[in-house]
Amino acid sequence: MNERPLILVSNDDGYQAKGINCLVSVLREFGDVVVVAPHIGRSGKGCGITSEVPVKLTKISSEEGLEIYSCTGTPCDCVKIACHAVVPRRPSLVVGGINHGDNSAVNAHYSGTMGVVLEGCMKGIPSIAFSLCSHDADADFTPTYDVIRKVVAQVLERGLPAGSCLNVNFPNSPSYAGVRVCRQAAGTWVNEWEAHIHPRGGEWWWLTGEFAVEDKDPQADRVALDSNYVAITPTTIDFTDYRLLKEMQEWEL
Amino acid sequence: MNERPLILVSNDDGYQAKGINCLVSVLREFGDVVVVAPHIGRSGKGCGITSEVPVKLTKISSEEGLEIYSCTGTPCDCVKIACHAVVPRRPSLVVGGINHGDNSAVNAHYSGTMGVVLEGCMKGIPSIAFSLCSHDADADFTPTYDVIRKVVAQVLERGLPAGSCLNVNFPNSPSYAGVRVCRQAAGTWVNEWEAHIHPRGGEWWWLTGEFAVEDKDPQADRVALDSNYVAITPTTIDFTDYRLLKEMQEWEL
Repeated sequence: MNERPLILVSNDDGYQAKGINCLVSVLREFGDVVVVAPHIGRSGKGCGITSEVPVKLTKISSEEGLEIYSCTGTPCDCVKIACHAVVPRRPSLVVGGINHGDNSAVNAHYSGTMGVVLEGCMKGIPSIAFSLCSHDADADFTPTYDVIRKVVAQVLERGLPAGSCLNVNFPNSPSYAGVRVCRQAAGTWVNEWEAHIHPRGGEWWWLTGEFAVEDKDPQADRVALDSNYVAITPTTIDFTDYRLLKEMQEWEL
Repeated sequence: MNERPLILVSNDDGYQAKGINCLVSVLREFGDVVVVAPHIGRSGKGCGITSEVPVKLTKISSEEGLEIYSCTGTPCDCVKIACHAVVPRRPSLVVGGINHGDNSAVNAHYSGTMGVVLEGCMKGIPSIAFSLCSHDADADFTPTYDVIRKVVAQVLERGLPAGSCLNVNFPNSPSYAGVRVCRQAAGTWVNEWEAHIHPRGGEWWWLTGEFAVEDKDPQADRVALDSNYVAITPTTIDFTDYRLLKEMQEWEL
């Protein structure tokens, strides 16, 4: 058996988004690709799962080395159902993206692209998220390809530690100052809601806001992006706070 | 000014769930309570947010020391909109729960109750999630009250480090072997999908499955729960993998 690596791809912008199709074109250089992605945009779903309604899985297309499915579930659901009902063998890699928008700093918590990758990681498969800091549906993803190739090649060769995955964010720029391995930047969303009046009366609220970076460390992912570096943030599914765990031994409980 | 602490409460089972109402009854001993919780059950929403439709906020009731609102958004949205448009002053505490169901191990990633608490933490407010390992809508929450009182009192007195919050899970038991400060247990979901045929044909998939614990460490939260201990898992919003960050300095990127 001399099988090519199998690469499972999903995203949160839907299977028709430009970002995922660009990603697939690069990943096909490395192996056979199976796409199982949301049937519509499912941005901001984090690690959400669908427990109260069933989901539908639809085969969209099939050609040598590439199968594409859509799923009515969340990004996490897509990885779960792909592993259960779609992939012909265990994937060597789960890849999320390329997201249309920034997933650095705490935004990783809200991100469906990171949902894909955390789910892949929970299943013990090396997993990588790629995101471009542009919400433009027709953004130019070609500048990202070289770094994607390098990261994918390294992960296929080296693997990743159990419970660890990568969150890669690209500045929206035709070329980069370099690649930086980063930590998650501190920051918070402010001015998050805008009230609108419904045509028939009553207030409805739109989630909006600005992200306030509270970090100046050049190794913080959002700061690196602002200096035109590609930011690679190694991420763990174990979010135990081990320092606080130690301190709490003194608490009276 | 000698104001009582303000405690913001939310959940993912909806404002009418028994768990949140039991929680509120205990928290009123400590301060004024504002509830902003989903109008219906929103389990499994993780840190999901609502960006594609506006959300509605509805005042349900108001009495001395207790205001209750429902919101059509996710658990995270509830905390966001509460902080923006509801609370009369900065909350001293954000509390999520009491969840009807286990949120230990990697389930914390899928949990809307943890979404509440991670969001509170992102806003710099000490935040605590409480969950009972029972999905029964009429579960008995009274055994949890003493530990809830102790944890809330300690957090109000000591605070929590910036970026840290607590994930507290209770065994479904009338009394406990003790309280243990834990780390997140390793484990994974298996047999996750069940295919059903729609009355008009076509396959639909229900998310189900069993959680396989891959941990024997008595300090792992799921293991502690199985030994009838209350498990308190200190949790960080910074899920950078600092060990991998160091190793990756050697990668060719």
